[in-house]
Amino acid sequence: MKILLITEDRSDDSEVLYPLYRMIEEGFEVEVAALSKKVISSKYHFTVEADKTVDECRAEDYDGLILPGGSAPEKLRLSKAALRLTKEIFDAGKPVCAICHGPQLLISAGVVKGKKATCYPGIADDLKNAGALYEDAPVVVDGNLVTSRRPQDLPFWMREYVKLFE
Amino acid sequence: MKILLITEDRSDDSEVLYPLYRMIEEGFEVEVAALSKKVISSKYHFTVEADKTVDECRAEDYDGLILPGGSAPEKLRLSKAALRLTKEIFDAGKPVCAICHGPQLLISAGVVKGKKATCYPGIADDLKNAGALYEDAPVVVDGNLVTSRRPQDLPFWMREYVKLFE
Repeated sequence: MKILLITEDRSDDSEVLYPLYRMIEEGFEVEVAALSKKVISSKYHFTVEADKTVDECRAEDYDGLILPGGSAPEKLRLSKAALRLTKEIFDAGKPVCAICHGPQLLISAGVVKGKKATCYPGIADDLKNAGALYEDAPVVVDGNLVTSRRPQDLPFWMREYVKLFE
Repeated sequence: MKILLITEDRSDDSEVLYPLYRMIEEGFEVEVAALSKKVISSKYHFTVEADKTVDECRAEDYDGLILPGGSAPEKLRLSKAALRLTKEIFDAGKPVCAICHGPQLLISAGVVKGKKATCYPGIADDLKNAGALYEDAPVVVDGNLVTSRRPQDLPFWMREYVKLFE
């Protein structure tokens, strides 16, 4: 399995490192993409090198998509390439997961209408306004979409995401 | 399963949060113990509340032990209660894992002699001098003992640790 993780500077450290390491633990290959090729700095300490820019990525090369939170998704949702990747991977029915502010990318990619989902409480109204069926729960699964609210939900988020590949 | 994680202030963030969340993801109960009952602050941002002090813990209540790194183990190895817990859980053949500086507790608890193990390179000589069969590898498994070198080894460390409960 080859998974794409899209993030940027000022992501939440744990929301990048937990799914990244968890996918490696599972034996999956993970590629990290950002707006430019650089060392991505999370809010507090964690860094990871971007393997590619979002412009370079092709949806058909990946079996799944991970969208961490923090301030990164507000930057990424302005990128047409990031939104195209999100929509194409989602529409192909491949497992997509987003946590905290990660669903901002799902909103802007136009994929949440009629879908059960959750997110960070501060953007819940935006998720509802985009047509999602919002639920305040540690993890919400609807088909190929797995969403969670905050870092403390990471264990439940990844438990459900990994199940989609079984 | 009920797992004990022993740490203190100035632990490495990822070395506490990854195994903590990973055990929760696995459906295990985790109790966190420190020298005193408090909110434990990792080096950069992550915090976790100590459920108990090491003095309050009884080895027989746990099915496994996790020893993260950072500067925490240098403080913990001065605690007789922490060393007693480590030795009793180890000697009972229950799965024990340590990463980075975590093996400092294994050294002081006197459990590494003749065991294959790894650790942060800066304390490799100490592990060797304690009689361990040191290996420079992402993860080293010897019976009920799983050790790793640094945060980047977390996926391999936890992959092997989880296997011991299967």
